[in-house]
Amino acid sequence: MPKREKSKRLQVVITEEQDSLLTKTAYQLSNPERLVSKAEVVRLGIEMLNRAVEEGKLDPKLLKDIEGA
Amino acid sequence: MPKREKSKRLQVVITEEQDSLLTKTAYQLSNPERLVSKAEVVRLGIEMLNRAVEEGKLDPKLLKDIEGA
Repeated sequence: MPKREKSKRLQVVITEEQDSLLTKTAYQLSNPERLVSKAEVVRLGIEMLNRAVEEGKLDPKLLKDIEGA
Repeated sequence: MPKREKSKRLQVVITEEQDSLLTKTAYQLSNPERLVSKAEVVRLGIEMLNRAVEEGKLDPKLLKDIEGA
């Protein structure tokens, strides 16, 4: 991540299932030399989703999830 | 999203740039009949990242971002 000039606090309500997904993903991205936190997973997710949207490569299944929300 | 049984409050510190990305992505996913919130973008990002990790399709550039953090 680039240097933090200004930061914002983001509050999101997630389900327990999403919380477990976060933990699992953080663990899978971790290794003995680098522990990835859940907050990092969220930041990565934001960047990944943004990239997908910019490239028009958004997984249609995810869009369905939105529509079903 | 499935029914919320239990929910958790997630707090993440993000940069202003990431906050702008969120807003931009939420806007791009919105349409006149469906306004997508920043919280929804975060939840989608979590699911998308999890899916990518499960499928072993994680964008190597994103992993580099982690390493550079």
